[in-house]
Amino acid sequence: MGSGSEAALEVGAGEVVRLPAGSRDILPDEARALRAITAALAGVFEEAGYGEVITPTLEYADVLARGDIGEVKPGYRFNDEGGSWLALRSDMTVPLARVAATRFPSASGPLRFWYSQTAYRPIPALQGRSREAIQAGIELFGVAGTEGDREILTLAAAAIDAAGVGDARLVVGDARLSYTVLSAAGLADDALGAAHRKLAAGDFVAVERLLAAAGAAAESVRATGQLLRTRGGADVLEQHAQVLGDPGRELSATLSSLDAAARRRVIVDIGHVRDLDYYSGLVFEVMHEAVGEPIGGGGRYDTLVERFGVQRPAVGFALEIDGVHRAQHAGGGR
Amino acid sequence: MGSGSEAALEVGAGEVVRLPAGSRDILPDEARALRAITAALAGVFEEAGYGEVITPTLEYADVLARGDIGEVKPGYRFNDEGGSWLALRSDMTVPLARVAATRFPSASGPLRFWYSQTAYRPIPALQGRSREAIQAGIELFGVAGTEGDREILTLAAAAIDAAGVGDARLVVGDARLSYTVLSAAGLADDALGAAHRKLAAGDFVAVERLLAAAGAAAESVRATGQLLRTRGGADVLEQHAQVLGDPGRELSATLSSLDAAARRRVIVDIGHVRDLDYYSGLVFEVMHEAVGEPIGGGGRYDTLVERFGVQRPAVGFALEIDGVHRAQHAGGGR
Repeated sequence: MGSGSEAALEVGAGEVVRLPAGSRDILPDEARALRAITAALAGVFEEAGYGEVITPTLEYADVLARGDIGEVKPGYRFNDEGGSWLALRSDMTVPLARVAATRFPSASGPLRFWYSQTAYRPIPALQGRSREAIQAGIELFGVAGTEGDREILTLAAAAIDAAGVGDARLVVGDARLSYTVLSAAGLADDALGAAHRKLAAGDFVAVERLLAAAGAAAESVRATGQLLRTRGGADVLEQHAQVLGDPGRELSATLSSLDAAARRRVIVDIGHVRDLDYYSGLVFEVMHEAVGEPIGGGGRYDTLVERFGVQRPAVGFALEIDGVHRAQHAGGGR
Repeated sequence: MGSGSEAALEVGAGEVVRLPAGSRDILPDEARALRAITAALAGVFEEAGYGEVITPTLEYADVLARGDIGEVKPGYRFNDEGGSWLALRSDMTVPLARVAATRFPSASGPLRFWYSQTAYRPIPALQGRSREAIQAGIELFGVAGTEGDREILTLAAAAIDAAGVGDARLVVGDARLSYTVLSAAGLADDALGAAHRKLAAGDFVAVERLLAAAGAAAESVRATGQLLRTRGGADVLEQHAQVLGDPGRELSATLSSLDAAARRRVIVDIGHVRDLDYYSGLVFEVMHEAVGEPIGGGGRYDTLVERFGVQRPAVGFALEIDGVHRAQHAGGGR
């Protein structure tokens, strides 16, 4: 029945009925495929003891803003009938952190939630990105460090298998690694934020310029730039153990704890940075060679839940259902 | 894990994290029940040859406004990044009519779509209604009259069975019946709209006043008011066949065509009026004695699709998943 991707549609009398750029109708063939992906993921999540949570599309803008989520701020804001500022959620992690803190303030054990909901991203017209993205994912609250990270990476590997994109890879880093590496190379604390943003944009040259401006020797600039570009197996963490410090040791321990099925899907990326600034440890993106952007991602965010009143470690990930579907097709319809 | 219905939630430091009135978090026990209802309905719809369609949450406000949907106007409007007016859909029938017209402009046979999506209703604070409602339903395009109406009522009966609320009832009328009855009683054309709105609000006394003001004899006012309040089996259509005219005959033919399983769920309601003004024939609501408001509804809207450029008869219905869930509980958890 076609993919339904055009935004402008001729109608009878020469009128045009348009959809906003970056949005589209999903017609039956595709909807059936997306529903099958979601059902497969739901099976993995439920089997692992996660329970579904559904949060409102619309929340008070100042509540969502507690997430302080870097470049992906809740952008669709408007006044409701009572004059309050409402916003559409731009991801699911912030609402789920709110749920974990406010609906289960005195939970002593871990909380395991999954969701399948749409996230809304304001986009400049003509940029070609999707304005509405269906995401299915999990959040694990109350399990710190390697134990929680291991559970999430294991389930991410199981999820891509169940969704028929087992050839996807988990590109893994730690949000603190680039700080550790750049500090060791002599970058002052007040320049680390700028360097982090350049890394998030993939601009290694700018990072090297910042290092040089800070007085690092040419050889150190070169070696640091190369280290931040380094991808490989878990062994790259051992090779550079000294400069990677505690974050490197923790990531190494997490990867060692994975079973073979999960571990062979992991690629270590020393300079890996995500554009959401609530990550505090493990970070990863789900990449598929046939899709030009991540089809999912996740990480640890140990300081987000306390913004809603309760201190609780947290880690999670989500897949973009549309991205998984595109990867399925590219991979021969598996 | 509780029902999660409170809008204000205490957090640690005495702060309060609020949700907008009329919205709530749905926690795992309830989410599991809602997902099971949706899966049961999806099974009925797919089995009957309907294909799922997913439309954007956000559309251009002027596109949704072509639905001209009476009191339930798309109310959440705001400017996007390009200055265009966007709105959140307030029902699914208007977007699906748009899809049927613009994505399948030259379809010669029937189109059968189902959906399970959230509709957004601006509500005055403290009114206690739900701001976000998950609806699952079907729309049948290209099948006029009794044949299409029969399919929809049959599937509505099958849907309530599959959803575990087989004791719900389809309260059935025709959007033209009240006009026919009031015209016969002497109400002039220019007063029919006002009478229709009073009926939609259940204000029979106001309708009788309008009739009296139009010069109807007291006996006629009384008999007409009584007729509009009449509910019963299909036989009430035969009893009043003369005054009910063509709409009465058509509804009677539709009900006669139903099999016994569907027919025993039908209650005829002569004065039945829905608050959406796009209905042009059959109208019905799904009522359950344990829930104070309809848990679903539908009808025929033969003039809506042409507002998007293609003339095509149409009929459909939807269930409110939350209402079905409440009815399940009230009915003993079936």
